[in-house]
Amino acid sequence: MNHAVRTAHSTCGNEPGLISVDQALQMVLEHTDHLGTETLLLSQALNRFVAADIYSEIQLPIFSQSAVDGYAICMDADRPAESSFELIGEVRAGQGADLILEPGQAVRIFTGAKIPLQTTTVARQEIVQLRDSTIILTQALVLDADIRHAGEEISMGQCLAVQGQQLSIGTIAALSMAGIREIPVYRYPKIAVVITGDEVAETVEDLDSGKIFDANTPLIQAWFQSRNQQVEIMHVADTEQAVSDLFEQLRNQYDLILTTGGVSVGDYDFVRPVALKLGFEQLFWKVKQKPGKPMFFAKSDRPDQSPCYLLGLPGNPGAVYMGMQIYVSTLINALQGQKQLPQWFSAVMSHDLTADSRERFLRMVASFESGMLKLSSLPKQQSHMLSNLMQANCIVRVPAAQAIRTGQILQGLFI
Amino acid sequence: MNHAVRTAHSTCGNEPGLISVDQALQMVLEHTDHLGTETLLLSQALNRFVAADIYSEIQLPIFSQSAVDGYAICMDADRPAESSFELIGEVRAGQGADLILEPGQAVRIFTGAKIPLQTTTVARQEIVQLRDSTIILTQALVLDADIRHAGEEISMGQCLAVQGQQLSIGTIAALSMAGIREIPVYRYPKIAVVITGDEVAETVEDLDSGKIFDANTPLIQAWFQSRNQQVEIMHVADTEQAVSDLFEQLRNQYDLILTTGGVSVGDYDFVRPVALKLGFEQLFWKVKQKPGKPMFFAKSDRPDQSPCYLLGLPGNPGAVYMGMQIYVSTLINALQGQKQLPQWFSAVMSHDLTADSRERFLRMVASFESGMLKLSSLPKQQSHMLSNLMQANCIVRVPAAQAIRTGQILQGLFI
Repeated sequence: MNHAVRTAHSTCGNEPGLISVDQALQMVLEHTDHLGTETLLLSQALNRFVAADIYSEIQLPIFSQSAVDGYAICMDADRPAESSFELIGEVRAGQGADLILEPGQAVRIFTGAKIPLQTTTVARQEIVQLRDSTIILTQALVLDADIRHAGEEISMGQCLAVQGQQLSIGTIAALSMAGIREIPVYRYPKIAVVITGDEVAETVEDLDSGKIFDANTPLIQAWFQSRNQQVEIMHVADTEQAVSDLFEQLRNQYDLILTTGGVSVGDYDFVRPVALKLGFEQLFWKVKQKPGKPMFFAKSDRPDQSPCYLLGLPGNPGAVYMGMQIYVSTLINALQGQKQLPQWFSAVMSHDLTADSRERFLRMVASFESGMLKLSSLPKQQSHMLSNLMQANCIVRVPAAQAIRTGQILQGLFI
Repeated sequence: MNHAVRTAHSTCGNEPGLISVDQALQMVLEHTDHLGTETLLLSQALNRFVAADIYSEIQLPIFSQSAVDGYAICMDADRPAESSFELIGEVRAGQGADLILEPGQAVRIFTGAKIPLQTTTVARQEIVQLRDSTIILTQALVLDADIRHAGEEISMGQCLAVQGQQLSIGTIAALSMAGIREIPVYRYPKIAVVITGDEVAETVEDLDSGKIFDANTPLIQAWFQSRNQQVEIMHVADTEQAVSDLFEQLRNQYDLILTTGGVSVGDYDFVRPVALKLGFEQLFWKVKQKPGKPMFFAKSDRPDQSPCYLLGLPGNPGAVYMGMQIYVSTLINALQGQKQLPQWFSAVMSHDLTADSRERFLRMVASFESGMLKLSSLPKQQSHMLSNLMQANCIVRVPAAQAIRTGQILQGLFI
């Protein structure tokens, strides 16, 4: 069989021993565990995962309250228009309501304010006329109108958040409303990012000598920034000694070493041989995927603490981008106790795709048509190219070794 | 017509003069303009909008390079297996390639390295045997294999990013690869958030006196945090003087004053009357929507600068949450020159919904089934309730005054 091709695509990927994308993701989940827990202020915990079930110490609403601006009334049955009540006071939101209504009495009240004892209904102000210290209904009023009852949303002791729940904006707001201020969460891994490769240009002049501009540092920096995480990014020279010295130092200080480049079989690819020499255990190397075939995953056990993990991404920025979105996010979640595969969407291909021997992650445009998510691929998918990320809004998994037909369902992630 | 109801839902919304959601969003776009531009380091510009078309000053790849680890070869035609070439040197990624290949010669080369002049093809190392200073092909090799040609992705002067494009992670990486380090972007508005309401509890003991825990501050804080933006949040007492003094001060310093509460018609709702008294021009007040009916939008012209805008959200946290996701994001984008309606998804209702006189924003769960996005609503949708945000992953627009049937297509936003 002749593997030579006329394009810059490499067709290799049929070598024995490559694992599939599903196998690689499964191994990320199998070989990892959470790194312990810590308690944070809720305001510092956005996007973290809750480490224990959280129960409410109060009910919500905390007290029965008015749902509108109007009048809290004590009456014993539904009343017709023209009914009148004696106005005996006012209760604002945030005030206690010490007074007790007697039948025929009313108090001025505002949205969210605690209704007085013996309130049986609330008349919103639009249906009330005020005459001296009497109010008169302009419409009929039923019992129990416009009252928010104590505990109707949350009862005391009710579970508010379950272990593993991610603290979204809405979750943080809902927990705050129940008076939660601190929350146990899984520890976020300490991550060091190591960019390998002597080819990074500092200036335009450097380009003449075979260097290129670095896309991986800004890519990874922005990726963590978008997740509200700081990360340390360092560069290392393409020598065995430099890589070895750095890994030796990092593995004691970080839970995860993330590298770009240096994981293939070139003479200057030192990430894997150095890691193995330092005693890292290889969990997998090479995945039957495009881009990102030479991806490397290993761990180094440490006395009295969780292992240090090393995920080696290939150096091409297309592979780094895919690796961050698919593997690094899965790994970081797993290190916070969330052993879940990526939450793929399913969507419909709007055109054919030719087969490839490896499973591919293609950058595409997904758009909704009457509830259906439709996919269109983009040109320039090679692993050293990034420019189609200006248009792409998703990464789509295209199964290996089969031509894809219009209408076929594929999985993907929004990016 | 009897408007009284037995639930805490208020059915009011039929009053004349209410504008629709579409009208309100349209007015946000119509009455706003961008606030000028600034140049930022690309690394500081995540999620900002590009203020000018960006053209490439280089081509990509910058030079023709090897796509694999292997051997750059000079040969004049496709060659069969067993062909041999003289090995005359090595080129690593990041090195210049000063040598010139003659027919029959080869150099060791690595992925991304600049190919020497007169290279006509690259043999990946898997199909090459090395014997002293000669390499022998183990498979046939065609011309032009595994070469990434200079400029095949981007040519010099090509447009890299268009005015208005948002700087996503991928966009930042792609621009970095083309050597872009600084970028003109639209200025982000200076935003002050004012939380009104005397009912916020500081401690559990405060709850006895009719106070509640504040959900709006943590909600808004997390919302801006998730967008990588700092924001100043302040509280103001429910008195006309306090609100007036604060607005007077803020309107000179901020482009946008965002308030929660105090926009209804209660006796202590000072946001709107104070703003009008201070000379703010009302753009709209009251939208036929649930939650969030009393939403207020105004602006105050300022000499020699853009107006100060005021968006008054109702105080119920459900209305604040919807307001942030739908209106505040639209407004903030518009103040950065992006006059676009929210990018609604379309999805299929998986059950019936009863009609309501107002358009509703309901918190729902959306999930993909074979490419189709299916929607299920959640209980506890009232505007003072937030607990269903623990489950919800989207907000869905439900049109006014019509019952929704299973299978009907609705619009929404992921949250």
